[in-house]
Amino acid sequence: MTDSPQAIDDLIALMAKLPGLGPRSARRAVLHLVKKRAHLLIPLADAMQQVGETVRECVNCGNIATDDICGICASERRAIGEICVVEDVSDLWAMERSNQFKGRYHVLGGTLSALDAVGPEDLRIPRLLDRIKSENVTEVILALGATIDGQTTAHYIADQLPGITVTSLAQGVPVGGELDYLDDGTITAALKARRAI
Amino acid sequence: MTDSPQAIDDLIALMAKLPGLGPRSARRAVLHLVKKRAHLLIPLADAMQQVGETVRECVNCGNIATDDICGICASERRAIGEICVVEDVSDLWAMERSNQFKGRYHVLGGTLSALDAVGPEDLRIPRLLDRIKSENVTEVILALGATIDGQTTAHYIADQLPGITVTSLAQGVPVGGELDYLDDGTITAALKARRAI
Repeated sequence: MTDSPQAIDDLIALMAKLPGLGPRSARRAVLHLVKKRAHLLIPLADAMQQVGETVRECVNCGNIATDDICGICASERRAIGEICVVEDVSDLWAMERSNQFKGRYHVLGGTLSALDAVGPEDLRIPRLLDRIKSENVTEVILALGATIDGQTTAHYIADQLPGITVTSLAQGVPVGGELDYLDDGTITAALKARRAI
Repeated sequence: MTDSPQAIDDLIALMAKLPGLGPRSARRAVLHLVKKRAHLLIPLADAMQQVGETVRECVNCGNIATDDICGICASERRAIGEICVVEDVSDLWAMERSNQFKGRYHVLGGTLSALDAVGPEDLRIPRLLDRIKSENVTEVILALGATIDGQTTAHYIADQLPGITVTSLAQGVPVGGELDYLDDGTITAALKARRAI
C-alpha cells in the first residue's frame, strides 16, 4: 500500500494470518481498530500481551492454562477415574459447553496421520498412558472426530488399553437434524445403533 | 466459558468485536494465536501497541498517519490544486490502489445524514473549505459513494464552492461487469452517459 504508514501495513499483514480473515477483511478490521483506539485497540493489545505472558499448556492434560496445571485438572470437583480424550482444546471447550462431562480431559494435540507422518509420540499419547496408570482411570471416553484419522487414533488408543473400559461418543442423528439433509453414512450409523423406546 | 482462563475469555470477547469475526470465529482465532505464540501472538500484540502509540489523524486531510501531517499531504510529488474528497480512509486506500490520482485527499469521516443527525460540522467539511482557499485549489473531485447520503453530501459540498470546478466519479458499467448482472439504475446511468467511440 503506497503511503500508508508502515505500522499499519505490518498490522494488516499480521491480522491477515488469523483464520477467518483475509487481506481485505484484515484491512477493514485494522481501520476499525484505529478508529476505536481507546475502546478496542489498546485493550486488545494488552489482552494479547497478557495471554502471551501467562497462558501455557497444562503439563498434565494439554489444556491451555495460566498455571502449570489447568483449572480442570486442579479442580477437586471433577471426578477422577474418567478421562475424556479430545483432539484439540476447541473440542474440550465444546464438551465443556454441553456441561455434561464431570471427569477430566486429555488433549492429544491432533490425530495420528500416515499422510502427515504424525505418530503416537508426536501426540500426547505416551502421557495419556502414564496418566491412566497413575490416576487409577477406569473409563476412557474417546471424543475424537468421526473422520478416518480420528477413528484410526481411537482404535490405536483402545488397543493400548486392555482391561480398561474404552468408550466413544455415539453416532446418529444430530438433535434438531432433519433426515432429508443427513448423509447416508450417518443414517446407516443411526439405524444400526437404534434403540427401543 | 467455564474453566478456561480469564485472560483467554477476555481476549475472545475483544476479538469478537472486530468486524468480520463473531464469538465462534473469535474463539478459533484465539486458539490459533495461542498455538502460534512466538510467530503471531507476540508480534501482533507488539504491532497493535505500535499502532496505538504512533498512528493518528493527519490534521490536514484526516488520513491516518504517524506524523501530524500524513505522507500524501507531506509529499512534494503530489499535485497541489486538486483535492479528492472521500468518505473514509478505506476509500482513500482504494483510490490509491488504482494509482491514477496524483493530487491530495480530504477524508470527510462520513456522509451527511438526516437520519443519523450528521451535519456539516460533524464531518471535516469546514476544514475542506479552509483548504480550498489556502491551497489555491482549482478542482475538487467528489469520490463519494453512489448512495443517497453520499450524493446529498456531494451536492452540499458543490453548493459551497461557487467558482471552482467540482467533478464526481463517472457512473457506469464496472470493468469486467456483465450487463445481465447489473441493476437497472446502473444501466440507466451508463446509457445516459454513453460516449462516441
